[in-house]
Amino acid sequence: MVENNYNPMHAPRYCGIPTFMRTPYITDLNTIDIALVGVPYDGAVEARSGARQGPRQIRDMSSMMRAIHHVTRINPYELCRVADVGDVPFNQIFDVEASHADITAFYRRIYNHGVAPLSAGGDHSITLPIMRAIAKDNPVGLVHIDAHTDCCDEEMNSRYSHGTPFRRAVEEGLLDPERTIQIGIRGAANSAECWEFGPRHGIRIVYIEEFTKIGVDQVIAEARRVVGDGPTYVSFDVDSIDPAFTPGTGTPEIGGLTPIEAQGLIRGLRGLNLVGADVVEVSPPFDPSGNTALIAATIMYEILCILAEALQART
Amino acid sequence: MVENNYNPMHAPRYCGIPTFMRTPYITDLNTIDIALVGVPYDGAVEARSGARQGPRQIRDMSSMMRAIHHVTRINPYELCRVADVGDVPFNQIFDVEASHADITAFYRRIYNHGVAPLSAGGDHSITLPIMRAIAKDNPVGLVHIDAHTDCCDEEMNSRYSHGTPFRRAVEEGLLDPERTIQIGIRGAANSAECWEFGPRHGIRIVYIEEFTKIGVDQVIAEARRVVGDGPTYVSFDVDSIDPAFTPGTGTPEIGGLTPIEAQGLIRGLRGLNLVGADVVEVSPPFDPSGNTALIAATIMYEILCILAEALQART
Amino acid sequence: MVENNYNPMHAPRYCGIPTFMRTPYITDLNTIDIALVGVPYDGAVEARSGARQGPRQIRDMSSMMRAIHHVTRINPYELCRVADVGDVPFNQIFDVEASHADITAFYRRIYNHGVAPLSAGGDHSITLPIMRAIAKDNPVGLVHIDAHTDCCDEEMNSRYSHGTPFRRAVEEGLLDPERTIQIGIRGAANSAECWEFGPRHGIRIVYIEEFTKIGVDQVIAEARRVVGDGPTYVSFDVDSIDPAFTPGTGTPEIGGLTPIEAQGLIRGLRGLNLVGADVVEVSPPFDPSGNTALIAATIMYEILCILAEALQART
Amino acid sequence: MVENNYNPMHAPRYCGIPTFMRTPYITDLNTIDIALVGVPYDGAVEARSGARQGPRQIRDMSSMMRAIHHVTRINPYELCRVADVGDVPFNQIFDVEASHADITAFYRRIYNHGVAPLSAGGDHSITLPIMRAIAKDNPVGLVHIDAHTDCCDEEMNSRYSHGTPFRRAVEEGLLDPERTIQIGIRGAANSAECWEFGPRHGIRIVYIEEFTKIGVDQVIAEARRVVGDGPTYVSFDVDSIDPAFTPGTGTPEIGGLTPIEAQGLIRGLRGLNLVGADVVEVSPPFDPSGNTALIAATIMYEILCILAEALQART
Amino acid sequence: MVENNYNPMHAPRYCGIPTFMRTPYITDLNTIDIALVGVPYDGAVEARSGARQGPRQIRDMSSMMRAIHHVTRINPYELCRVADVGDVPFNQIFDVEASHADITAFYRRIYNHGVAPLSAGGDHSITLPIMRAIAKDNPVGLVHIDAHTDCCDEEMNSRYSHGTPFRRAVEEGLLDPERTIQIGIRGAANSAECWEFGPRHGIRIVYIEEFTKIGVDQVIAEARRVVGDGPTYVSFDVDSIDPAFTPGTGTPEIGGLTPIEAQGLIRGLRGLNLVGADVVEVSPPFDPSGNTALIAATIMYEILCILAEALQART
Amino acid sequence: MVENNYNPMHAPRYCGIPTFMRTPYITDLNTIDIALVGVPYDGAVEARSGARQGPRQIRDMSSMMRAIHHVTRINPYELCRVADVGDVPFNQIFDVEASHADITAFYRRIYNHGVAPLSAGGDHSITLPIMRAIAKDNPVGLVHIDAHTDCCDEEMNSRYSHGTPFRRAVEEGLLDPERTIQIGIRGAANSAECWEFGPRHGIRIVYIEEFTKIGVDQVIAEARRVVGDGPTYVSFDVDSIDPAFTPGTGTPEIGGLTPIEAQGLIRGLRGLNLVGADVVEVSPPFDPSGNTALIAATIMYEILCILAEALQART
Repeated sequence: MVENNYNPMHAPRYCGIPTFMRTPYITDLNTIDIALVGVPYDGAVEARSGARQGPRQIRDMSSMMRAIHHVTRINPYELCRVADVGDVPFNQIFDVEASHADITAFYRRIYNHGVAPLSAGGDHSITLPIMRAIAKDNPVGLVHIDAHTDCCDEEMNSRYSHGTPFRRAVEEGLLDPERTIQIGIRGAANSAECWEFGPRHGIRIVYIEEFTKIGVDQVIAEARRVVGDGPTYVSFDVDSIDPAFTPGTGTPEIGGLTPIEAQGLIRGLRGLNLVGADVVEVSPPFDPSGNTALIAATIMYEILCILAEALQART
Repeated sequence: MVENNYNPMHAPRYCGIPTFMRTPYITDLNTIDIALVGVPYDGAVEARSGARQGPRQIRDMSSMMRAIHHVTRINPYELCRVADVGDVPFNQIFDVEASHADITAFYRRIYNHGVAPLSAGGDHSITLPIMRAIAKDNPVGLVHIDAHTDCCDEEMNSRYSHGTPFRRAVEEGLLDPERTIQIGIRGAANSAECWEFGPRHGIRIVYIEEFTKIGVDQVIAEARRVVGDGPTYVSFDVDSIDPAFTPGTGTPEIGGLTPIEAQGLIRGLRGLNLVGADVVEVSPPFDPSGNTALIAATIMYEILCILAEALQART
Repeated sequence: MVENNYNPMHAPRYCGIPTFMRTPYITDLNTIDIALVGVPYDGAVEARSGARQGPRQIRDMSSMMRAIHHVTRINPYELCRVADVGDVPFNQIFDVEASHADITAFYRRIYNHGVAPLSAGGDHSITLPIMRAIAKDNPVGLVHIDAHTDCCDEEMNSRYSHGTPFRRAVEEGLLDPERTIQIGIRGAANSAECWEFGPRHGIRIVYIEEFTKIGVDQVIAEARRVVGDGPTYVSFDVDSIDPAFTPGTGTPEIGGLTPIEAQGLIRGLRGLNLVGADVVEVSPPFDPSGNTALIAATIMYEILCILAEALQART
Repeated sequence: MVENNYNPMHAPRYCGIPTFMRTPYITDLNTIDIALVGVPYDGAVEARSGARQGPRQIRDMSSMMRAIHHVTRINPYELCRVADVGDVPFNQIFDVEASHADITAFYRRIYNHGVAPLSAGGDHSITLPIMRAIAKDNPVGLVHIDAHTDCCDEEMNSRYSHGTPFRRAVEEGLLDPERTIQIGIRGAANSAECWEFGPRHGIRIVYIEEFTKIGVDQVIAEARRVVGDGPTYVSFDVDSIDPAFTPGTGTPEIGGLTPIEAQGLIRGLRGLNLVGADVVEVSPPFDPSGNTALIAATIMYEILCILAEALQART
Repeated sequence: MVENNYNPMHAPRYCGIPTFMRTPYITDLNTIDIALVGVPYDGAVEARSGARQGPRQIRDMSSMMRAIHHVTRINPYELCRVADVGDVPFNQIFDVEASHADITAFYRRIYNHGVAPLSAGGDHSITLPIMRAIAKDNPVGLVHIDAHTDCCDEEMNSRYSHGTPFRRAVEEGLLDPERTIQIGIRGAANSAECWEFGPRHGIRIVYIEEFTKIGVDQVIAEARRVVGDGPTYVSFDVDSIDPAFTPGTGTPEIGGLTPIEAQGLIRGLRGLNLVGADVVEVSPPFDPSGNTALIAATIMYEILCILAEALQART
Repeated sequence: MVENNYNPMHAPRYCGIPTFMRTPYITDLNTIDIALVGVPYDGAVEARSGARQGPRQIRDMSSMMRAIHHVTRINPYELCRVADVGDVPFNQIFDVEASHADITAFYRRIYNHGVAPLSAGGDHSITLPIMRAIAKDNPVGLVHIDAHTDCCDEEMNSRYSHGTPFRRAVEEGLLDPERTIQIGIRGAANSAECWEFGPRHGIRIVYIEEFTKIGVDQVIAEARRVVGDGPTYVSFDVDSIDPAFTPGTGTPEIGGLTPIEAQGLIRGLRGLNLVGADVVEVSPPFDPSGNTALIAATIMYEILCILAEALQART
C-alpha cells in the first residue's frame, strides 16, 4: 500500500497545468511505480502526420479522469505510486533510427529503475524502441489492439516506419510471436504480406469480422490463452476504434471497435502479468475537439487500473 | 381530439424563426396541453459550461423533426395541443439558488394550468427546480437516463451543482427513490458516494455494463417495473449517449448508449403515467455542427409522442 | 416618435426564440415602419451554396446587437417601429424565376403598406425580385458593396443567377445606373464583360485598389455624389469583406474590406434618402462559428440606424 | 484477366492529383470495364444542400483506399479495368429536369459502351436519370440502403426532388418494385405516403428496427431473395448510416446503421448480377474533416470489389 | 542580471508539459520576480462563457513563444526570474464574490513577496480582485485595451459581473480614474451609462474611431500622458482585437484592433512604471484552433518584455 | 502567342478532378512554358507538420481562380502554355537529404526543358532543392516574403530543416545575397543569429515594422532596387500573412501582412526577370475550411500573371 498522492477533487477539471491524469510531475524514478510517459514523435508516419502533438492533447483531456473505477472499484493511486515523468527528450527529430535511439535511452532508465511505463504516443513506431528497452532481457507477449498488423517489411523504403514495428520486434527477439494476439485488424492492403507475416510466425490475428461474430468475452478468453502468464505488453492504437469515435488519427479505417468494446477488452486483461503499455496514434490536428484524446486518456486510465493491480500483486 | 396546429410541410426546414419542432409560439397556457420550454441555464456546472446556449441550438435543429412517428405512427400534434412557450426568464443568473427559484416560478405557472412540460436544458441542475414546481404535491417516479447518477452531496462546496439534483430531490420529498431508475451510469469517480446514495434509498441503477449485457428490452421491463403506474418524470442527459454521437456536452464519458438504444428506451416507456420530461446538458460550443442538438431534438420528439399519448389517455 | 418596443436588457443574449435584433415578431404590416425580413433562398448560386440557411444564423447572432449606437447615439427603436416579419414563404424552390416571383409578391405587400424592408439573404439574386416590388414605380439609386459587380449577362446559361441581378435591374428599369456605385470590386473573371457593362451604362465602380488608395472618406463622398438625394437602396454582399472576417460565404475573394471600413461606409450614408437595404450571401455551412453572421447582423444594425433616421426625417 | 493498371504503393496517400481510388483518369470508354463517375449535382435538395461538392471530397479521401480486400482478398484491379472518367458535364444547373437530362446523356454513353458505372453523388435525385440510361431496355432490381424511401410523390411542388426518384423510376418502368428492397428506413414523416407507396407496389422495406432485430445476415438473405438473379443496381445513401459516422449529409436521421453493418450488407451482395451502383448525399460543407467522404469511398471500394467480380463472372 | 532559467531550444514546441512560455513551474515566490498566473474563472459572464478554460489553452499555445524580441531585442529571461506559478485555487466557483475573494487571497501572497503578476484569464471580472491585492495600498493607473469600458453599474442584477470591474475599482479606490485610459472601445449598448461613467470621473476613452483616425503612435503618446510615471497596470481584453483574429471570446464586437496595432500599443508602453498586467477573455470553446490563445500568448510575451525591463530598472 | 488551353467557364467551380487552376494535367514538358508543380513534403518541419497535404488542398481551392486579372487585365493563359505537371514523386520520405534529392531531380528535368516552375509546397525546405536544379548554373536573386528569415544554421541538429534553406542556398552559391530581399520578418527568436546571417552577407531584411511604416509602394521600390534585372525567384511563405487569414500553417506569427498587401507586393514585381516561384507552408489540417489554401491559390495566380508576362517578354 502506498500513500495516496492524488486528490483530484481539489480543483475543477479545467484548472492547473495539465499532467497525465493530474498526477504529480516527478522525475525521480526511485519514488514511483508507474511512469506516465509522453512520446511526441511522428517522424515514421507515411500517411497523415500530427501524432507528435498527441501527448499534449491527451494530457489536457486526461484531466477528465477520476480515481475510482466504476466497475472494478480499483483506485490505482491507492495501489501504486503513479507520476507523469514528462516527455522523451529528443536530440534530433529528422532521422527515424536516431529518434528511436533517443526513445530507447529514456525507457532504459525507466526499466532499470523497475518502473512500469504507460506511454502516450506518438506514432506506432515508438513501440519498437520501447520494447528494445524493456524487453531486451526477456521477450514479451503482446495484446495488440489495432486496425493494422503493423507487420509490413517496409513502407516508403523504410524498415522502421509506423507500419513495421512488430515485424522488427519479432526479428529482434523482443516480441514472442507465439504469445502475441492482434485484435481489430481490418482495411484493404496493397500486399497481403502484412497479414501473412504474423500467422507465419505464430501470431494470432482476430480480424474485426471475427471479433464481431464471437464477441468481446470470447476474444478476451482467446487473448488470455495466447499471452498466458508470461510478461505481457499492451499496445493500443486508437485507430482500432471506429473513426467516428477517434477521428483524430492518421490512418483511419472505418468499421472499427466501439469504445465499450475497447474498454471491455482492457478490463478482460485483469490479472495478466503486465509490464507496460502504450496508447498511440492520436493526431490532434484531425480532432481539435479533443474527443479522440479523451478516449485515449480513458483507455490509459483503464490500463492504469489493471497495471497497478498487476504491479501490486507482484510485490 | 384537438385541432391540428402543425403543418410543417408548408416550408423547407431551414425557413422561419425557429421554435421547438416548428410549433407555434404561444404564451396563453390555457390553450395548450404540452409546453415545450427552454431553460438556458448552466450556472451550476463544475466542468465545461455552455449549456446556457442549448435551447437555441435545439430549437434550430428541431426543424428537422416531422409529425408522424415511423414506428408507432403517433402524430402528437393530433393528440394534443403543443406549443413552444419560450424560455424561462431569469431575474439574475449569478446565484444558483436564486436562478433555481426563477425556474420553479415559471414551472409552477405551467403546472397550475395543468400543462405538461417538456423541457430543453440547460444543465442538469434544472431538474430540481422543475420538480419543486410539478412534484410539490406528490413525489414523482423517475426514469433517469444519464452517464452520472447526479446524486453527489456537493461539488465544489455547492449542494446545488448539476451533480446533485436527484439527491436533493429525494431529500426534499419530490422524488420517490423506490420508483426511480437510473440507466447508462458509467465513468470513474473520486468518491463512491455518488453510486451509493441511490441504492441506499432504493434507487435502481443500471450501469452501462448491465445495459449492454441484458439489452434494451430487459432494461425497459425493469424500468416499467420500477416506476409502475404512478406519475413519472423522464430526465434525459445527452451524456448518457456516447460522446461520438453527442460531443456537445460538458462532461463526456466514453462508452455510452447509441441513439438507437436511447430511442428504444423512450419508446419502451409508452403507456406510462408521464407528467413531464426534460432533455439536458446540450452544450453547443462543443458541437457547432448541431449534431448533438439534433439528437436532443429527436429524443424530445420521441418523448413528445408518448407524452401526448399519455395525456390523451388521461383525458 | 414611436413607443419603444424593444427592451433587450431583460434577458441575456442567449435567451429566447431568436428574431432579428430581438425585435418582436409581427405580421401586421400596419403597425410597423421597418420590416426585418429573411429570404432563405440560394437556388441561383453557381458556386458554393448554403445561403438558404443565412437568415437563421443571422437571427441567432443578431441577439448580440444592442440599442444605442456608440458613435451616433442613434437608438433606432426610438425612431421607428421595427419588427421581424419572418421569412418570405416559398411555394416552390426549384425554379429560379418562380422563386423570384414568390419574393416579389411578399415585398409588394410590404411596399404597399409603406414599410421599408431591411432584408437578410439568401443569395444575391434576391435583390432583383425585391427591386421589382419596391422600385416598380420609380427606379432606385444604389450603393452596392460587393467583391463582384453581379452584372454578368448569364451564368451557367441562366440570366437570373446571383451573378446577374444588377444587369437585369438596369435592363428592367428598376435601377438607375447613373445613380449606382459599386464598391469593393475585385477578383479575376473569365470575361471582362462583368466589369464593362456597368461603366457602359454609367455605373461608377470603385475597385478595391482605388478604395485602398483614396480611403473610406473619399469613397463616401463619391457615393453620396453618385446617388444624390433620390430614393436609394443599399445592397451589401458579405463577400465584399475579406474572407478572413466573413469565411461563411459562397464565392470568397481574398483582399477585401475590413469590417471597420464597411462600418465606416454605412455610417457615411447617413442622411441619404434610403428606401430599403439587404445584406446577402451569408452561407452558414462555411462558418459554423457564426462570426460571418455576426458581421452581417452588425451591418444590418448599422443600416437600421441610418434607415430609421431617414424614415423619421421623411415623416 | 486484365493488366493491372493500379500501383498505389508508388506514392504516399496525400500525393498526386486525386482521382477516385487513385485510378487513372481515362475518357476512352472502349478501354475500361468499370467507370468511376462523379455527379456533382444537388439542385433537387429541399433541405441542406452541398452534395454538389461530394465527388471532389470523395475523390480526395479515396486515396486512403488500397487494392486487396482484407476479407475476400479480391483485388478489383486484377479483375477489371477500372478508371475515373471524370464528372458529368452540365450545360446548366438551375433546372432540375434539364440537369437530369445532362446526367442521362452522359450515362447513356457509358451504357452503350458496355461499361458498368459506379457513381459518387450528388443528391439522390441523380439515380433516376442514371436509371433512365442504364435501365431503359430492362428494368433493374434494386438494393437501396437509405434512411428514407425517397418514394414521395413530390416535395416543394416538384416531382423530381431527391425525395422522389424511386417512385418515378417505378412509374417510368425503370425499376422493378418486386425486385426492390429498401434497408435502414427510419425517421418521422409529414405524410405516411412515403412509406406506403413502396409496399403497395411490392417493394420490401426493412426498417431500422427490423434490421436491428434480425441482424445483418438475415437482411442479406432477404435482399438476395428479393432481387434474385436479375440485373441489380445498388444505391447507397450515406444517411442510411448514423450521422455520428456520416455527419456530412443534408438530411441526417439519428439511429442509423454502423459502418460495420453497412460493409457487411455490401459484402453480402457478392455474386449478384450487378449492373451498377451509386453512393450519394455526401455534403462536404457539413463535414470538412472528410470522415463522411472516407466512409463513402470505402463503401465504393466494397462495391467495386463485388461489381468487378460480377462483371468478370459474366465475361 | 539573473541566471537564465530558460532554454527553449532544447525541445520542439509541441513537447513537454505546457507551462506559460515554457518557463519552470515554481511555487516558491521568494525565487522569482515575475509570476505568470492562470485564473480559470468565468463565473461572472453574462454572455457566452468558456473563459474558465482560457489559461490552459494559452499555456499550450505559449510554447510557440521564444526568448528574444525581434524589435527591442529584449530577452526578458535575462532580465528577470520568470516562472509559471500555476492557477489560482478556488474553494468554490458558484458565488462570484467568494470566488473573487479566492483570487485576491492568491495575489496578496504574490504582492507580499514583491513579485509582479502577469495573468491569463478568465473573464474580465478577475481584474477587480487582482487590484484588491496589488493596489490596496496605492491606487494604480491603468492602460485598458478592450472593446468595452466594463464600467457598467450592474449586469443581470450583479454589481460584480465582467462588465463592471473598473467602476468598482474606481469606487473602491483601487484605480485612479485620472490615470486611466481605455482604448479600442466600440459596439452598441443598451444604456449610455457604460460610456459616461468613465469620463465623468476623468477616465480617457479612445474609441476605435479615434484610434483609427489618429493612429497607434498618437494613442501611445496619449496613454503615456494619462498614466504618467505612477504605478501602472495593463489590462488587455482579447475582444479589443477584431474577432476575425480573436474569435475565441465571449462578447465579440466587430471592427476592432489588428494584432499589429495591439503589439504596437504594448511596445509603446516601454519605460512605464508597470506593476502588473493581465490578458483576459480567451474562451477556447469558441476557437478550438488555438489562434486566439496564440494572440493572447504573444501579447503576454510583449508585456513580459516591457514588464521585465521595468522591474529591472527599479532594482 | 499560344493557343488558349483554358476555358474554365465550361463548368462550375466544384466540378471535375482538381488540377492547379483547372489547367490540363500534362507530363510532356516540351509542350508547356510554365509548370505548376506540387511538392507534398513536410519532413523538415520542427514545429507543426501537415504541409505534405498542401498541394492537394491548394489544387482544390484553385478552382475558384479565373482567367483575367481585374487590375492588369493579364490573362496568363493567353500569354503562355500553362499546365499542372503533377507532384514530385518521392522514392522515400523519411530522410531529409534523400527527399531533397528527389525534388532536385524532378526540377532539373523541368529546368532542362526551359520550363519555368511555379510550385506549391510543402514546407519551406523545398526551395533549396528547387534552387539546386534551377540556379545551379547562375545564382538567382530572391524576393522572399515570410515571417521568418529561414537563415538558421540548424534546427534540432539538422542543417536542412525548413528554417535553414536560404542560408544553405547562399553557402552553396545558388542564391545571390546581394540580390535578396526578405519581407515581413517578425516574431521572437531564441538566437539572434537568424536575423544576423542575412545582413552580414548583404541580404536586405524588411521587418514588418518597417513594412507598416513605409508602405507597400516603397517596399516594392526597394525590392526592385535589390533584385535588379537579373534572374529572380519569388518565394512566398503563407505565414508572412497574418494567421487570421492563413491559420493553416505550421509556425504562425501574429501581426503579419494582409492579403491586400501581399497581392500588392506581387503585382509590384511586374516586369522583373522572373525564373520561377513557390508558395509554401500551407498545412491543411490546421485549416480544413480551405481559406488558407484559397489565399495560396490566389497568390499563385497573381505570380502566374507576372511570370507569364515575364516569360513572353523574353521570347
